[in-house]
Amino acid sequence: MIYLYTGNGEGKTTAALGHALRALGYGKKIAMVCFMKGRETGELNFSKKYKKNFELFQFGAGNFTNLKKPSKADKLLARDALRFSKKLIQSKKYDLVILDEINVAVGFGLVSKQTVLKVLGKAPKDRVIFLTGRKAPPEFIKIADLVTEMKEIKHPFKKGIQAKKGLDY
Amino acid sequence: MIYLYTGNGEGKTTAALGHALRALGYGKKIAMVCFMKGRETGELNFSKKYKKNFELFQFGAGNFTNLKKPSKADKLLARDALRFSKKLIQSKKYDLVILDEINVAVGFGLVSKQTVLKVLGKAPKDRVIFLTGRKAPPEFIKIADLVTEMKEIKHPFKKGIQAKKGLDY
Repeated sequence: MIYLYTGNGEGKTTAALGHALRALGYGKKIAMVCFMKGRETGELNFSKKYKKNFELFQFGAGNFTNLKKPSKADKLLARDALRFSKKLIQSKKYDLVILDEINVAVGFGLVSKQTVLKVLGKAPKDRVIFLTGRKAPPEFIKIADLVTEMKEIKHPFKKGIQAKKGLDY
Repeated sequence: MIYLYTGNGEGKTTAALGHALRALGYGKKIAMVCFMKGRETGELNFSKKYKKNFELFQFGAGNFTNLKKPSKADKLLARDALRFSKKLIQSKKYDLVILDEINVAVGFGLVSKQTVLKVLGKAPKDRVIFLTGRKAPPEFIKIADLVTEMKEIKHPFKKGIQAKKGLDY
């Protein structure tokens, strides 16, 4: 199954993480692959504490990827992430696999939509794959079983409030 | 701070739970109060495994609350949940407090909007309170710092697929 979270509002990655927490309650195994993220986050720290069932793999430079002008290194990292995700999905070792920010990676041409569709097409049907990130391509929406658009109504960043550790990352 | 998740789409409770997972990564303490829910869920099981930092309190009969005609017992339980939430918030013991489905409990008259607003108004500003559930009243949206509307684009239940343990609850 494919669960897709998109839209301009907050709650996409966290909704996938919430499913991880819920699945951990039933002893399931979760893997999260982070596209374009290579820095300390709550979920990364959590994976170190709970490594038996929740594994997190970051692919991304330590800094933020400049999406309007991604570097060659950014592209290589994103392609590595996708190859890695493919193996991980096919291993059937995990009940849930989160491909975090993959929609954005596709949107900015870091990885090709067709390659992602191929990986998803071959995924075992009894596992759940989560795709997150703004501006999901229509092809992803078409093949997904569940799609929620997270729509921003209000966001503290807009009032100049900075991202808080343990809350926003 | 108040984070509010509403709308008809999937991902409201799970987005709050994702914040819990993230906060656990930083050793923060989380409490979740479930309105109108009294049955096994992944998050309940998780709280038993991770009880040091993630506590969950269910207020609700074992069966589903008939929202169109809530029983006297349902109302009493929801009011207990709110009184309990108030104490819990004021104790300052928790960094994050999730009031799960409180929007729905208000919408169907199980608890009064004014009482909830009073509880939220007195909450310590350095803690984060999550409100979840469809049809959040405008007054909640007004006082919230972050509001996301989870909008349903596609949902497997609509195709007759049943809720899955460890995924949908």
